[in-house]
Amino acid sequence: MPKLPLIEQGKPFSRRQLIKLGLAGAGVAGAALALPSLTRKQTQPAKIPPLSSEAPAVAAGFNPMAIVRDFDYGTVKKENGRTIREFRIVAGTTKLDLNSAVSFITWNFNGRVPGPTLRAKEGDRVRVIFLNNGGHAHTMHFHGIHRAEVDGIRPVRNGAATIYEFDAEPYGVHLYHCHIAPVTRHISKGLYGMFIIDPPTARPPADEMVLVMAGYDVNDDQRNELYAFNGLPDYYMMHPIPIYQNQLIRLYVLNLIEFEAAATFHLHANFFDVYPTGMTLTPTQRTDVITMGTAERHILEFAYRYPGKYMFHPHQDAIAEAGCMGLFDVIES
Amino acid sequence: MPKLPLIEQGKPFSRRQLIKLGLAGAGVAGAALALPSLTRKQTQPAKIPPLSSEAPAVAAGFNPMAIVRDFDYGTVKKENGRTIREFRIVAGTTKLDLNSAVSFITWNFNGRVPGPTLRAKEGDRVRVIFLNNGGHAHTMHFHGIHRAEVDGIRPVRNGAATIYEFDAEPYGVHLYHCHIAPVTRHISKGLYGMFIIDPPTARPPADEMVLVMAGYDVNDDQRNELYAFNGLPDYYMMHPIPIYQNQLIRLYVLNLIEFEAAATFHLHANFFDVYPTGMTLTPTQRTDVITMGTAERHILEFAYRYPGKYMFHPHQDAIAEAGCMGLFDVIES
Amino acid sequence: MPKLPLIEQGKPFSRRQLIKLGLAGAGVAGAALALPSLTRKQTQPAKIPPLSSEAPAVAAGFNPMAIVRDFDYGTVKKENGRTIREFRIVAGTTKLDLNSAVSFITWNFNGRVPGPTLRAKEGDRVRVIFLNNGGHAHTMHFHGIHRAEVDGIRPVRNGAATIYEFDAEPYGVHLYHCHIAPVTRHISKGLYGMFIIDPPTARPPADEMVLVMAGYDVNDDQRNELYAFNGLPDYYMMHPIPIYQNQLIRLYVLNLIEFEAAATFHLHANFFDVYPTGMTLTPTQRTDVITMGTAERHILEFAYRYPGKYMFHPHQDAIAEAGCMGLFDVIES
Repeated sequence: MPKLPLIEQGKPFSRRQLIKLGLAGAGVAGAALALPSLTRKQTQPAKIPPLSSEAPAVAAGFNPMAIVRDFDYGTVKKENGRTIREFRIVAGTTKLDLNSAVSFITWNFNGRVPGPTLRAKEGDRVRVIFLNNGGHAHTMHFHGIHRAEVDGIRPVRNGAATIYEFDAEPYGVHLYHCHIAPVTRHISKGLYGMFIIDPPTARPPADEMVLVMAGYDVNDDQRNELYAFNGLPDYYMMHPIPIYQNQLIRLYVLNLIEFEAAATFHLHANFFDVYPTGMTLTPTQRTDVITMGTAERHILEFAYRYPGKYMFHPHQDAIAEAGCMGLFDVIES
Repeated sequence: MPKLPLIEQGKPFSRRQLIKLGLAGAGVAGAALALPSLTRKQTQPAKIPPLSSEAPAVAAGFNPMAIVRDFDYGTVKKENGRTIREFRIVAGTTKLDLNSAVSFITWNFNGRVPGPTLRAKEGDRVRVIFLNNGGHAHTMHFHGIHRAEVDGIRPVRNGAATIYEFDAEPYGVHLYHCHIAPVTRHISKGLYGMFIIDPPTARPPADEMVLVMAGYDVNDDQRNELYAFNGLPDYYMMHPIPIYQNQLIRLYVLNLIEFEAAATFHLHANFFDVYPTGMTLTPTQRTDVITMGTAERHILEFAYRYPGKYMFHPHQDAIAEAGCMGLFDVIES
Repeated sequence: MPKLPLIEQGKPFSRRQLIKLGLAGAGVAGAALALPSLTRKQTQPAKIPPLSSEAPAVAAGFNPMAIVRDFDYGTVKKENGRTIREFRIVAGTTKLDLNSAVSFITWNFNGRVPGPTLRAKEGDRVRVIFLNNGGHAHTMHFHGIHRAEVDGIRPVRNGAATIYEFDAEPYGVHLYHCHIAPVTRHISKGLYGMFIIDPPTARPPADEMVLVMAGYDVNDDQRNELYAFNGLPDYYMMHPIPIYQNQLIRLYVLNLIEFEAAATFHLHANFFDVYPTGMTLTPTQRTDVITMGTAERHILEFAYRYPGKYMFHPHQDAIAEAGCMGLFDVIES
């Protein structure tokens, strides 16, 4: 990594630099999320139900039913024969109605909570162009192997941008989040997302989904009053996720709940294979309840034998009943 | 499962139906736990101390020293050449003196906390005839593989009954509990029990025991003031569980503590083999402290080399010191 | 173990006994920590940075930068052809400035928090001569296999001494702590330490380090206001631990945080191999976040590929930001 194109944080950066980074349009002054969506759907041989028109978006560009299967593979380039995946992320703020009574100003990446699920293949070069329009200093700290310079600890002030560049390794289910103190607050406000690195040989076809568990500290008392899968409390209870009977489901599950020591993930009427941190190609355990500390994440695989609706939730039922609960709707195939 | 004999919840059910279910005696009006005990002792080649007369019952039909080794194998029938295990469960209420100062109205299955340890063999058909005399709507939600219809989510109102029927699979240590919201309350009041599915080839002979960790929210503040193994705080401290020296002990341990993210199980002066969720025939780990989120459960195996008294408790010592603590009394053999 | 030299707790013990135990100098009346340090450095083929003069001691004989790599192998004797490791531990009290505003009276072993990292080889005979000068009744309860008589449950009153003697088994990362109720208080005040039993064949050379996570309940409200690695909040943030690039690091990590269900250990920009409870010679998992209930402990191995400063902390960020956070300073090699 001889010429790390890291923009120095202290300096204001010029329009010329912004243009070079392709960020001029979304520029320093622009609070809106002007970046075009870079997400691309994976070509899936697995049987996946179409996106229902009955599952509504909850903010501009943020539809929990869409993002559950939405993977951002970036813009692929070749540089010196090497695959570069370029991702563009803008930190901003979005008001979300968490329920009929509570509006909440989220801090987020690309207008959604969680941020986009970034996805690369082991060995790719990852280049993340990060613009902070969030009103506060923010960063993107990635879990993964990389140099100290791109560890996402140095604050990126409001209106500034930076580039995080590193090799995608090792394969697994990882994450990124803002690392500005208090991290509890920056994470609870919504500044996190999943970062999947695929193994060199792809995993078998499956209906792949992302579920991120997190909490909302609505009244700033260092506790969560509400919880959610993928940003919106109870969304998947009101809008069950359709899946097909006997279809292999591959869940990428991440616990980013602050102010709680741990949360479990429990699936009703079924069991799942566990690939810890997604860093194995064979499962190490089968169960129906798994404990995950904050920032732990796993791949969980299963298929439903019988049609019908089945709940999933942490088995710390206080968390589940405050919004972290959902349903799979298993469709006869 | 072509003819699922599920009693419809909406309808009151008739005396004729009750008679058919064998529940007439315990009928709708009867709040008392009139069902005869259906528990049966396993034929154990292992060396097991006799039940001491010094370990008292704490309520009618509820003796923590008895239930630690009490397994309910149900009534066995053959239907079309297949083994059916029929269990009869009645939800009710029982007042328990948790200690010399605190009386507590438990909600429970068959008059005990935890409810009976139901036990079947993988491949058996399990039929649970459930009568709710508990005064509130209740259900039995089983962990295991089954159809959505018998997932125990639909409320069974007070005075009503239902049948949950499914195949016993997969082998492991599972559980059942009431799934009426708030689940935190229905579980904390005592509506839970263990459900063991034995593998096709039995595990080696051992002195087998059940320990369920749970909490009591005595003052309804969404926290536990007291904790217990098998329902009664500090019971096994005052009445140590006798075991023989060098005898293989097989603990079926379940954490059903609400309002706490996790609890550990720690054994003094020894180590145990861990069979996660009881779903393996070979252990995957040896340790003396294991972390379990709510609803996690394992088989732990060990033997004591030296006679004497040894404590067991979660190593979150605040939980232990509020009642979740016990002693093994290792008897020279 | 025919003649267990256990000093009876009830009796005051004589100067003659003290002399026999070699404790006369530190005698009953002496509150100060007069015992000479018994620690010995391991002969390490691994590349280890020298102890910096810029990392200050925080109390007499207590320097967190020194204790991170400080292992106490005891005084080695041969008795009947067998290796005996004799350790001398004195419980006392030491005032620590946890930060610029908070002074705290710790209860501790040998004047430091955590107490000395005791280290033996599987099969050695361990003899711990314990003198309690702590002002309250205390004990040393070891995790390991031993007789009930030396389980460290019986109180050793202030001014008294006892000997805990047992075989070092099984190999792994274990711990000791005071077991006087309330254990939450005796542990939170600082009465704990690590107890490492090496396998018969030594592990490969590495830069070995000890990190113990614990909390301080400064205002006695049964919650922690401050947290620390190795006793002093934020010490390793202000004084990063130097390590060499590409050098195998072997962390012995223990979670002894009371009043929290669990804590994770997270390493920045890297992944580690996990040896659960240190009881395996091959790792069972690789990740960068691992959940540990109170009293859980593991060996974590890793090496840093790139120089620079990298954080480590529990990912329950409220715990990290209250003092349980540190830095490795990876030095180019």
